[in-house]
Amino acid sequence: QEDHLFKDEPFTPTDWERHRSWRRHCPEPRIFARVFRMLSIVELWLVAVSTFVMLYAHFLQPKGWPQAVSKEYMIIFQLTSFALSLLMVFRTQTAHARWWEARTAVGRWLNVVRNTQRMLMSWVPPSEAHLVGEFARWNAVLTPAACAYLCRRQSYWEVCEDLLQPSELAWLRSCDNPPVKVLAIMSGLVKRTSLSQIERTAVEGELNAFDVALGACERITRQAIPMAYTRHTSRFIIVYLTFLPFALWPYVQWLLVPIIMVLGFLLVGIENIGVQIENPVRVLPMRRFCIGNRTAALSMVRHHGDVQHAIEAGLLAAAAAAAAAESPMAGMDGKGQ
Amino acid sequence: QEDHLFKDEPFTPTDWERHRSWRRHCPEPRIFARVFRMLSIVELWLVAVSTFVMLYAHFLQPKGWPQAVSKEYMIIFQLTSFALSLLMVFRTQTAHARWWEARTAVGRWLNVVRNTQRMLMSWVPPSEAHLVGEFARWNAVLTPAACAYLCRRQSYWEVCEDLLQPSELAWLRSCDNPPVKVLAIMSGLVKRTSLSQIERTAVEGELNAFDVALGACERITRQAIPMAYTRHTSRFIIVYLTFLPFALWPYVQWLLVPIIMVLGFLLVGIENIGVQIENPVRVLPMRRFCIGNRTAALSMVRHHGDVQHAIEAGLLAAAAAAAAAESPMAGMDGKGQ
Amino acid sequence: QEDHLFKDEPFTPTDWERHRSWRRHCPEPRIFARVFRMLSIVELWLVAVSTFVMLYAHFLQPKGWPQAVSKEYMIIFQLTSFALSLLMVFRTQTAHARWWEARTAVGRWLNVVRNTQRMLMSWVPPSEAHLVGEFARWNAVLTPAACAYLCRRQSYWEVCEDLLQPSELAWLRSCDNPPVKVLAIMSGLVKRTSLSQIERTAVEGELNAFDVALGACERITRQAIPMAYTRHTSRFIIVYLTFLPFALWPYVQWLLVPIIMVLGFLLVGIENIGVQIENPVRVLPMRRFCIGNRTAALSMVRHHGDVQHAIEAGLLAAAAAAAAAESPMAGMDGKGQ
Amino acid sequence: QEDHLFKDEPFTPTDWERHRSWRRHCPEPRIFARVFRMLSIVELWLVAVSTFVMLYAHFLQPKGWPQAVSKEYMIIFQLTSFALSLLMVFRTQTAHARWWEARTAVGRWLNVVRNTQRMLMSWVPPSEAHLVGEFARWNAVLTPAACAYLCRRQSYWEVCEDLLQPSELAWLRSCDNPPVKVLAIMSGLVKRTSLSQIERTAVEGELNAFDVALGACERITRQAIPMAYTRHTSRFIIVYLTFLPFALWPYVQWLLVPIIMVLGFLLVGIENIGVQIENPVRVLPMRRFCIGNRTAALSMVRHHGDVQHAIEAGLLAAAAAAAAAESPMAGMDGKGQ
Amino acid sequence: QEDHLFKDEPFTPTDWERHRSWRRHCPEPRIFARVFRMLSIVELWLVAVSTFVMLYAHFLQPKGWPQAVSKEYMIIFQLTSFALSLLMVFRTQTAHARWWEARTAVGRWLNVVRNTQRMLMSWVPPSEAHLVGEFARWNAVLTPAACAYLCRRQSYWEVCEDLLQPSELAWLRSCDNPPVKVLAIMSGLVKRTSLSQIERTAVEGELNAFDVALGACERITRQAIPMAYTRHTSRFIIVYLTFLPFALWPYVQWLLVPIIMVLGFLLVGIENIGVQIENPVRVLPMRRFCIGNRTAALSMVRHHGDVQHAIEAGLLAAAAAAAAAESPMAGMDGKGQ
Repeated sequence: QEDHLFKDEPFTPTDWERHRSWRRHCPEPRIFARVFRMLSIVELWLVAVSTFVMLYAHFLQPKGWPQAVSKEYMIIFQLTSFALSLLMVFRTQTAHARWWEARTAVGRWLNVVRNTQRMLMSWVPPSEAHLVGEFARWNAVLTPAACAYLCRRQSYWEVCEDLLQPSELAWLRSCDNPPVKVLAIMSGLVKRTSLSQIERTAVEGELNAFDVALGACERITRQAIPMAYTRHTSRFIIVYLTFLPFALWPYVQWLLVPIIMVLGFLLVGIENIGVQIENPVRVLPMRRFCIGNRTAALSMVRHHGDVQHAIEAGLLAAAAAAAAAESPMAGMDGKGQ
Repeated sequence: QEDHLFKDEPFTPTDWERHRSWRRHCPEPRIFARVFRMLSIVELWLVAVSTFVMLYAHFLQPKGWPQAVSKEYMIIFQLTSFALSLLMVFRTQTAHARWWEARTAVGRWLNVVRNTQRMLMSWVPPSEAHLVGEFARWNAVLTPAACAYLCRRQSYWEVCEDLLQPSELAWLRSCDNPPVKVLAIMSGLVKRTSLSQIERTAVEGELNAFDVALGACERITRQAIPMAYTRHTSRFIIVYLTFLPFALWPYVQWLLVPIIMVLGFLLVGIENIGVQIENPVRVLPMRRFCIGNRTAALSMVRHHGDVQHAIEAGLLAAAAAAAAAESPMAGMDGKGQ
Repeated sequence: QEDHLFKDEPFTPTDWERHRSWRRHCPEPRIFARVFRMLSIVELWLVAVSTFVMLYAHFLQPKGWPQAVSKEYMIIFQLTSFALSLLMVFRTQTAHARWWEARTAVGRWLNVVRNTQRMLMSWVPPSEAHLVGEFARWNAVLTPAACAYLCRRQSYWEVCEDLLQPSELAWLRSCDNPPVKVLAIMSGLVKRTSLSQIERTAVEGELNAFDVALGACERITRQAIPMAYTRHTSRFIIVYLTFLPFALWPYVQWLLVPIIMVLGFLLVGIENIGVQIENPVRVLPMRRFCIGNRTAALSMVRHHGDVQHAIEAGLLAAAAAAAAAESPMAGMDGKGQ
Repeated sequence: QEDHLFKDEPFTPTDWERHRSWRRHCPEPRIFARVFRMLSIVELWLVAVSTFVMLYAHFLQPKGWPQAVSKEYMIIFQLTSFALSLLMVFRTQTAHARWWEARTAVGRWLNVVRNTQRMLMSWVPPSEAHLVGEFARWNAVLTPAACAYLCRRQSYWEVCEDLLQPSELAWLRSCDNPPVKVLAIMSGLVKRTSLSQIERTAVEGELNAFDVALGACERITRQAIPMAYTRHTSRFIIVYLTFLPFALWPYVQWLLVPIIMVLGFLLVGIENIGVQIENPVRVLPMRRFCIGNRTAALSMVRHHGDVQHAIEAGLLAAAAAAAAAESPMAGMDGKGQ
Repeated sequence: QEDHLFKDEPFTPTDWERHRSWRRHCPEPRIFARVFRMLSIVELWLVAVSTFVMLYAHFLQPKGWPQAVSKEYMIIFQLTSFALSLLMVFRTQTAHARWWEARTAVGRWLNVVRNTQRMLMSWVPPSEAHLVGEFARWNAVLTPAACAYLCRRQSYWEVCEDLLQPSELAWLRSCDNPPVKVLAIMSGLVKRTSLSQIERTAVEGELNAFDVALGACERITRQAIPMAYTRHTSRFIIVYLTFLPFALWPYVQWLLVPIIMVLGFLLVGIENIGVQIENPVRVLPMRRFCIGNRTAALSMVRHHGDVQHAIEAGLLAAAAAAAAAESPMAGMDGKGQ
């Protein structure tokens, strides 16, 4: 299930290179086959209808059976294509907007991880390093907890299993809302530092932003596009394609079956993509985000010493340069307050 | 009335599974019948017109009565379909945007419930636990109060009847704006804690966010899409479908009635969905939100002890690991401030 | 002028009920007559052109006069309808977006009224109740002042005449920017309370939000959609409808005049709605907002005692329940901090 | 150059009145002539091509020269009009979105001017009035400085020449980024007041908002819509109109030249508006904004005394009313804290 | 690679002048050739198919080979063009929205550079000028670091090589996330100043805003538009153009090859632009942003003295004018607090 057909992994520069060359136009039979299999029931139905229409039009109608196949019927499909178009545009744009909103919300999580960690590491005195370490640990757990909660899939806990005591893991897995618990723990840890109220409030503001971003994902995952639209679009497209052969036979004769199959693939294919990405947490690479955010939190703690070192070295060099008064950044000594 | 045809309940993973399989294309006769009954007056009108056109075209026009039915008239429908299309696109997109904005605002309420509760529980000293408990109680009442106010339906109070004294309930039900009252109570409770001004202001900021989200819902519920557009769209679609038979008869002959019925169902159906979801608080699962937000507020208080326990246990384990200096999270001891 | 054809009053539940039933499709002759009168000049022009075309095509062209009427010309209208469509879509969507942005900004005013009042009433000590009362009075005046300023109509002052001293009213009416003055007064009143800087800044932040929302309305009211688009759309639609009869006559013969009238009504009608709502403060129910916001401010002060009473009673009941230890909210005593 | 064809001055109520009457449909020959002159090169090219096509189709093709003009070619224009439509929709919507974003950002400047001035005047003690005066002076200079910087036109300085010492003006005119300098001066002035850190930070937040709004304008002015789209749209439209006569001749015969001219005017006209408003600071009434924002800043200082007076008078009247206990605002004495 | 065909450099006033004149419609053969080369594989394929169709239709079909080329097939392309249109609209709008979002986020960086620097320079006492200088140095390094990280191209470091010690440069180049390190350094420098917590938090808020804007760029660069849409669009367009000759031959005969080439160029060209700007950091002028932001940071420090001087001079002049009491800004002394 993890190698989902509609899952989009992060793009590397190589991916982009291929993406923008003419190679993107090459057929990919393996993917085509999988998509085709996905649409096979609809295709089967369309083939059945087309075959029936061909046989009726060729054998029965000429014998005086009631006229069911006629070039004249095409006007109806021309008149209604605007409505089909509007429903498919609506589905495409709405589904993509949901997908991108979820992606944006998940991307905001990374900002919370980095910002809270940076603020804490700048502001907390060295004597409270153990609190910063604990905070980083829970910061690294936060994204997997949110993913497990959103996707209702326990497998995301694997990403942070080594960071948690077995009892902690068991407790979180049994909670009905683990990320809210983790946020409360992070909030409690900040309260135990010697940060002032104003600093604490600033960190808490970022935790609030995480909750809001989590809420956006919850909202998208729990609330589908109004079913009435989904239903109406599906009905419209199926009715349209089912009756199209009655009008199309006189134009294309024995090519009817392949043409209807191609049309069905192209039209139902568009609707199908919109339906598949409607629940974005299923197609976004959530596991990657878990690993990435975990790495971000832990690596900031690990490199804290380097950053402090860089600050010291820079200040020393600047002082030396100021003393020598022949600094290469001559422009900057004009600030002379 | 609760089992409203356009009400969209939250989706479970099972719902999503069905949603993305080919089963979404299966006809649902029960729903179809209910939608059809909803549109039956319009359908009846269209059948009447079509029947009249058929009779006139078949019996009277050939006898030299004035020509009212002609293939040539089709050009008018082809020329104007772009305008009908634009009105229906406008209705669809605007109605859905309102629906989604209301859903987003209601989702923001949950964030307020969780964020205010988390901040209070982290920041208030244990000696003021009774104030936190009271705050949680009103926090749990806030969403039902907002729903009762927005939907002008007293039944939402049932969700929190057990949390309120009879006198409180009576007072709130008699208020013209209960959620504003509840927000004022929550604000007053925060003022009575020993929180500093900066902390109090941060909590108040979230209460302000609730009021803004509530205002968004009020705005959507009180102000419909400009009636001029609604009216013009309805007139356009009815005129279009009423006169279509005069042009369509020569193309489809005796199939006119079923075809007009299908066309009417598909076109008026699109407009109808847009009208039904235009007032989103009627079709969103507000009762679920009441229950969910109530649970969120109360369960955070209930699990407050667990969170405190997890913080303590984690700090102890970290201290032990630091002492043993062989911690499995070896990377993190490089932070050495 | 107050019973403006495009003015949309707030919807009540009854309005919604009618709105979503089939009754919205019923013709409303009175409104139709008023809209028709609005478009009558254009209609007159179209009737004149159509009549001329009919006479020319029937009497003169057959006699060998130059060919001006031909079925072949229809191709030009088919080719260009996409451009007309795009201009009308643009007008519809832009006008509605402006209308909704203005409505949202005006809705934000109510949030400012409620939030500032709530914050003040929670935070200011009882000894400064007179300052809160004065603040509420100016809070109630704020929205009428903003409406009088935006709509350049003095009649909005009537809403708050009883709240203002004659000298105050005279002074405000003579100001070139009354809402900015009222905001300055409110800001000055807050400064005179004993609120701390942090609390004062929070209130001031909401006053800033009012100014931003006011600025949005000013921007929309002072700056129309680029005239070039408005002009081009009008020219395009008039040229299109003026020359359409030359192509349409051979298709519809003596039905030309009614058909062109209907087409003109439908197409120019769409453009006309877009133009009418382009300046939203003229069609939004501003007087209702004035009254509503006034009521919100004053009623919060009036019910302040009830809120304080509810807080006290709730805390007492909770204390009693905690003492009895058999509270019906058993879950909440598990928080045991 | 100031009377730019696409410049949109602020609308007065009278403008709106004319705008929404039928008069907007009247032709404006003077403006038409100017637009036509703007498009004259394209029109000339289209006339040349049409004339060539007419001559070829009438004289040469019948003599057996290769067939270049045929009714059959029309299908190509029908097939591709959707793509031309999409490019023109894209240009129209994107150009208008940029224009409106710039207008919104410029409108935000006014809010900054008013909000910073109000906060300062409320918060700064009377003894520091000279600092407030200086702040107002620079506040009034801020918008002209931003306009001169954005439009790279020194003439905007005239608006505030009387407010600046010659040496200040000379210095600002020589800066590469004057508004950033003015913001730094305003920030420095605030630092010299006795405002607390929290108040200073709130004012600074509004200055940040000015910088962000300025950045939005810079971004729009420096970065055009991707040239590839502009180029492709222009090429598409020119190719479309250039080859259209080859298909159109058989339909319209000797009316070809006027018809192609009208089509060219309508289609290229739409693209042209999009291009002209793509750089909004050139078509927005920037000089008006300079004057308006200057007036706003200075008049707030000028009327500061009136505001203080209104506050005092109001408090006195309320005290008197409270003493008399029969105030007409009877509802408000129920707050009884 | 730097002279990328789709790279859009900042527009100067001269560029705008040319842009809005008729010259934008002139063909640019050099650019045309480069675009054509880009699409040459697709064009080659289309030429091959068209040639085959021509030969088959002219030589083989008349001899009784199966009918593969027919005017009747055109109906299929007319029916499906709405779906192709919707896919191309989706690609165009989505790609442009990503491009503009990235441009906006990058523009936000400049605001952070200017705002943090201004706040620091206003607030930090002269004795800590060395910290401000160091902050400016890292502020100037921040944008190149972000660009090197986003584009995975080390060449951006050249922009700030002279500002960094070799060891600093080496360390940053080896980091996996250099901008986060630079932000941590800047945060640490602010902590070492004597700024109060509230001031520090305000600066930190802007650093958070940089992180959020960086996150937006990361999100856009790592996550492409859902591949399913890209694939479906490409397949649809190729299938459409590949089979079009079978329907088009009877209409255009021997002009088939050039017409298909032009159609291919126009349609695939639109899709191609959308694909090329899908990853905006590759086509935006990132190097310019690096240089611009570096200049902004350093020049603010360099001109700090001028700003202080301007403040002093202005205050002195105002004091003198107040003393003389005949100031030209007579209106302002009416504030008389």
